[in-house]
Amino acid sequence: MPMSAIFCLLLFFLLSPLKVPAHQIPHCLIKGLPLVRNLSGYPQNNFGREGLSHITIAGAVLDGLKEVELWLQTFSPGSRTPIHRHSCEEIFVVLKGSGTLFLAPDLHMRQPAKPNEFSIFPNSTFSIPVNAVHQVWNTAEDTDLQMLVVISRPPVKVFIYDDWLMPHSLAKLKFPYYWDEECFHLSKDDYNDEL
Amino acid sequence: MPMSAIFCLLLFFLLSPLKVPAHQIPHCLIKGLPLVRNLSGYPQNNFGREGLSHITIAGAVLDGLKEVELWLQTFSPGSRTPIHRHSCEEIFVVLKGSGTLFLAPDLHMRQPAKPNEFSIFPNSTFSIPVNAVHQVWNTAEDTDLQMLVVISRPPVKVFIYDDWLMPHSLAKLKFPYYWDEECFHLSKDDYNDEL
Repeated sequence: MPMSAIFCLLLFFLLSPLKVPAHQIPHCLIKGLPLVRNLSGYPQNNFGREGLSHITIAGAVLDGLKEVELWLQTFSPGSRTPIHRHSCEEIFVVLKGSGTLFLAPDLHMRQPAKPNEFSIFPNSTFSIPVNAVHQVWNTAEDTDLQMLVVISRPPVKVFIYDDWLMPHSLAKLKFPYYWDEECFHLSKDDYNDEL
Repeated sequence: MPMSAIFCLLLFFLLSPLKVPAHQIPHCLIKGLPLVRNLSGYPQNNFGREGLSHITIAGAVLDGLKEVELWLQTFSPGSRTPIHRHSCEEIFVVLKGSGTLFLAPDLHMRQPAKPNEFSIFPNSTFSIPVNAVHQVWNTAEDTDLQMLVVISRPPVKVFIYDDWLMPHSLAKLKFPYYWDEECFHLSKDDYNDEL
């Protein structure tokens, strides 16, 4: 086969609209995905954080959403989020397992200070106010903690604290966050635009 | 008992922080609810729409959220949303049942026009672009369609169409929407502020 034919064939494949079955969603491939997708094929990953399984169901990087993002997160026994804050609203729904929500008592102090503790349980829901410092722990011994998490203003910009006494001004910005890092470089022209 | 004592007793009750068990959440009572709530006690209602069961898990009216709102909706066989649009983002996750998403093909025409149709199924997810005219039907004969729904910019402001040929300019604004109507009058001072 002459080189020109191989080149044309390659060009044909590169320019063809990619139609990927919903059960095969590679990282960062967002253009040409079906509008209605099967969640069972979604990539999950711990993004280097032991005990975490994270799936972005819909959001900024995969879908080009600008106002909301939805995650499915599972924490193995003993694992937890960092102590952190973000300037967005957040809603949790606990699907299974139990644990503890730690929440700084006051938004207006120099540092988070000793947090209030709230038990979380299956079928419970709670919302985190904008910029409230918080942490969620799976405190169970043998059960995963699985939660749906809604955030506004995606992709999330997270400030991480070493402990509850660290001043707000020293919290470290992690952006893009673990699960947005790999695909964050994509331009909005790459977003799925099938209607 | 003298009037002054009765008055003091009444004042005591009115000023006491209301602590209501999570399984008893009356309409419009939002101040003093626990931060972590049991969803099984949440009020559900059809709000005058046959075949609908709607629960606002967290949102503008109950929680004072300004950027995100989360609903759990169940549609009986044959029931559906109106043909409508809203200037917010929306994410659906189908928990059980199946149906059809109807979505106008183009945002820039004078009217929605004949919609594209997409099958929706358990464990599927889809997002509706801002202002895209859409409708969700439970087309199954004997199974409920249950979905989690995330919206931005709550409380939702909905423009309703009689049919797919109605010009955008004639769509009727329904605001506050069915499930926000009863409690919409509350001021933000009534919102839950427990941390």
